[in-house]
Amino acid sequence: MPRVAVLRIGHRPERDMRVTTHVGLTARALGADGMYLAARDPGIVKSIGDVVNRWGGSFFCVDDVKWRQCITDWKRENGTVVHLTMYGLNLPSLIDEIRTRDPLLVVVGAEKVPGEIYGLADYNVAVTGQPHSEISGLAVFLDHLFSGRELETTYPDARIRIVPSKRGKKTEEL
Amino acid sequence: MPRVAVLRIGHRPERDMRVTTHVGLTARALGADGMYLAARDPGIVKSIGDVVNRWGGSFFCVDDVKWRQCITDWKRENGTVVHLTMYGLNLPSLIDEIRTRDPLLVVVGAEKVPGEIYGLADYNVAVTGQPHSEISGLAVFLDHLFSGRELETTYPDARIRIVPSKRGKKTEEL
Repeated sequence: MPRVAVLRIGHRPERDMRVTTHVGLTARALGADGMYLAARDPGIVKSIGDVVNRWGGSFFCVDDVKWRQCITDWKRENGTVVHLTMYGLNLPSLIDEIRTRDPLLVVVGAEKVPGEIYGLADYNVAVTGQPHSEISGLAVFLDHLFSGRELETTYPDARIRIVPSKRGKKTEEL
Repeated sequence: MPRVAVLRIGHRPERDMRVTTHVGLTARALGADGMYLAARDPGIVKSIGDVVNRWGGSFFCVDDVKWRQCITDWKRENGTVVHLTMYGLNLPSLIDEIRTRDPLLVVVGAEKVPGEIYGLADYNVAVTGQPHSEISGLAVFLDHLFSGRELETTYPDARIRIVPSKRGKKTEEL
């Protein structure tokens, strides 16, 4: 499975706090290795870190990165850059090719994205050409990238895990 | 393809405005027929309606429904109720069976969900047993339900559409 980091751009503290937290948790739960946040927001770093501590794994979250430098560093070190945007080519037409690239930086914007990103990205990928959500776009992208196998991931170092059940809420402290 | 409506519960106006809008737009873009919102929030109804007007299709959004009544009405009319929750059985183990049911009501909570829902639902489905986002949970659920075919949906009555492109942003007014 390709190694994947997410770069979240366009984050505004306060307004985007919940959406960006959802982006980070989605990235972790669906198999990415970490998230770079192109804004300073220690609250998000802490809340993602708290989840990693309890639920396991080694997902990283780094804030205050410069998006242009993050992308150009990634490309110089021979990584591939994917930008998720409704304006791009549709996911099904690109995913087989993208799956052969490793590692991947997946750039996820908020409402407005600097035009330069479209040129810097190796792939501009649309999860449908319809307006919806960077969270759902990222989720469907990762699920297709990993062919659904990420849904079965377990975390041996977790301090808590859910015992799947038909009804009700069961957890186990480990 | 089964007909699907989403029931969004636990919405608090202001705080959940953006997340619930993302839930609605995700539901529309990934093939659901509409969303019931168990709270009064005309701003969300309007913003989803504006997207439908421009981008096409017949997605409905109704606010101020009572969640218990919405679920029991749905069940009485022979529909199946799916509740997305990290505590449920994992998606891959249930999706083939759920795909044979029609129509489906997909219940999507916010942070806390009334315990009663676990008993009312025909299926409690986890999109991984990890904490992430109701938006990504819904997205992956719908994408698996429709086997990715929903990514190719077109909207003949749209007033605007995107011309998919490798770089840049192209739209067409229709």
